[in-house]
Amino acid sequence: MEFSKSLQNKRLESTCHDSRFPDGGFKTAIIGLGLMGGSLAYALRGFRNGKIVGFDINAKVMEAAKEKEAVDSCAAAPEEAVAGADLVIFCSAPGSVMENMGRAIPFCKDGAVLTDVCGVKKEILAFVSANLPPRLNYAGLHPMAGKEVSGFENAEAGLFRGAGFIIVVPESYKEETVGLLRALSLYAGAGRVVVNREEEHDALIAYTSDLMHISASALCADYPENITMAHTAGAFRDCTRVARIDALLWTELFTKNAKNIIACLDIYTNNLLKFKEAMERDDKPFIHDFLQKANDNKNKILTL
Amino acid sequence: MEFSKSLQNKRLESTCHDSRFPDGGFKTAIIGLGLMGGSLAYALRGFRNGKIVGFDINAKVMEAAKEKEAVDSCAAAPEEAVAGADLVIFCSAPGSVMENMGRAIPFCKDGAVLTDVCGVKKEILAFVSANLPPRLNYAGLHPMAGKEVSGFENAEAGLFRGAGFIIVVPESYKEETVGLLRALSLYAGAGRVVVNREEEHDALIAYTSDLMHISASALCADYPENITMAHTAGAFRDCTRVARIDALLWTELFTKNAKNIIACLDIYTNNLLKFKEAMERDDKPFIHDFLQKANDNKNKILTL
Repeated sequence: MEFSKSLQNKRLESTCHDSRFPDGGFKTAIIGLGLMGGSLAYALRGFRNGKIVGFDINAKVMEAAKEKEAVDSCAAAPEEAVAGADLVIFCSAPGSVMENMGRAIPFCKDGAVLTDVCGVKKEILAFVSANLPPRLNYAGLHPMAGKEVSGFENAEAGLFRGAGFIIVVPESYKEETVGLLRALSLYAGAGRVVVNREEEHDALIAYTSDLMHISASALCADYPENITMAHTAGAFRDCTRVARIDALLWTELFTKNAKNIIACLDIYTNNLLKFKEAMERDDKPFIHDFLQKANDNKNKILTL
Repeated sequence: MEFSKSLQNKRLESTCHDSRFPDGGFKTAIIGLGLMGGSLAYALRGFRNGKIVGFDINAKVMEAAKEKEAVDSCAAAPEEAVAGADLVIFCSAPGSVMENMGRAIPFCKDGAVLTDVCGVKKEILAFVSANLPPRLNYAGLHPMAGKEVSGFENAEAGLFRGAGFIIVVPESYKEETVGLLRALSLYAGAGRVVVNREEEHDALIAYTSDLMHISASALCADYPENITMAHTAGAFRDCTRVARIDALLWTELFTKNAKNIIACLDIYTNNLLKFKEAMERDDKPFIHDFLQKANDNKNKILTL
């Protein structure tokens, strides 16, 4: 979608003169008001005593966000939303984040901090390294929170309560950038904030998030035809919860993290096949030790 | 463990004369007061205005069950617990259930209903078919509820609220037997009660329960060493919850349902390997359709 220069300028001017944004007030722009962007908007109300401007490609979502007071105002385009913003949070799928960033960068004010909430970082960090001018700052952010349903209608301020937030830093960055994202994370409700490089982040997420979504989906790929919900309990409910998935978004997240995911799937399927062979030869000691080790590992992870 | 006849008789006599069990009162015996037996004891307080007598191999558990008023009284042996009981519920692992049943059957009163709450039924139904005299009645029961922790200390009346209860019937049975177990299930809080033969039950449970526990355990068989809880969210928490497992109990449940589990693991690992191959060739349409179908199946199962 292209905007004519004159139209953009007119809109930028009207935003700059908006009485709700007095000079000196902190301004946060949120680009994409789905589950994550919408929830962040709710959770960041009042952050640094500032205002929040939102943008979404869906005009009805922007209407809803204003009506629910998730945002103070909305903009007609990413370029307009970022004008004068101290902090810009890109909250869509990775490809869309890079497209929006590319459009918005020329309109960002000097010293602005840009971030995104994507679940895979390597490509975005490479894009930033190639395209971000030195007058702007960037570090990625990955709030470890979500739901098996999507969209602004499912957004809520409490989504991030107690969640881990991963700040993903490029090779060189300003401490102040990380400081702002850490403050934002804690304000939104973070339980813990860690800092990773993108390789580390993507490799860990391939296990903690991608592999979990794949196992849940594969568990639902086939099911016995005479099953009823009366035959299911908490194990089925929990192991398959995230099979309710946004297929388009996750296809993008998975394929952008393919190398790490394939490595995880190799380990996972090898373990399953070893277990199946033990079942075939009725090897009770192997089965017992496999389960006991899994139990011990799960308990260990809970303390990390 | 053998009991001398005289010791047994003495004990039986003392139980029969217990003033808390007046003639005509309904008596339920629960053999095994772990998570399931303990929770059933709590949930069945007041069932048919009757009394509950419990037995557990662990004397401290019996003390706790009396102190918490989960049971009205305890017995020194299964043989003693079942004396005069209208309903006997065996709540331990399958091997132990069959051992306790074998010991208890001669002491059960005519017309008593025997049941068990094991998660795998084929072997128990075969045992019953070979050992139950015509004067006694049996149907299996499988409350689809559990926790990732075990033992009486984790038992609670609410465990069965809204749960599916599967009544597993032998080839021939009395309607009254199923009627009693249905009434018990609803009293304990069942959301839905279904009746299956053992083959159907075991095949469905291999998918809805066993496969889920195996996938969760295999997900925890190996994990990246630099992982922290800050890198995990709801997907990890839920997909691996039941990896906290009683290895001894589940080794028995799995190996007694091996044929059905191996069939499920074949389907599951084939689906995972197909997905991995699609990841390796960057086949976005396959990945998308795989996820979409899983999403649709999950939503469909929720309505069954």
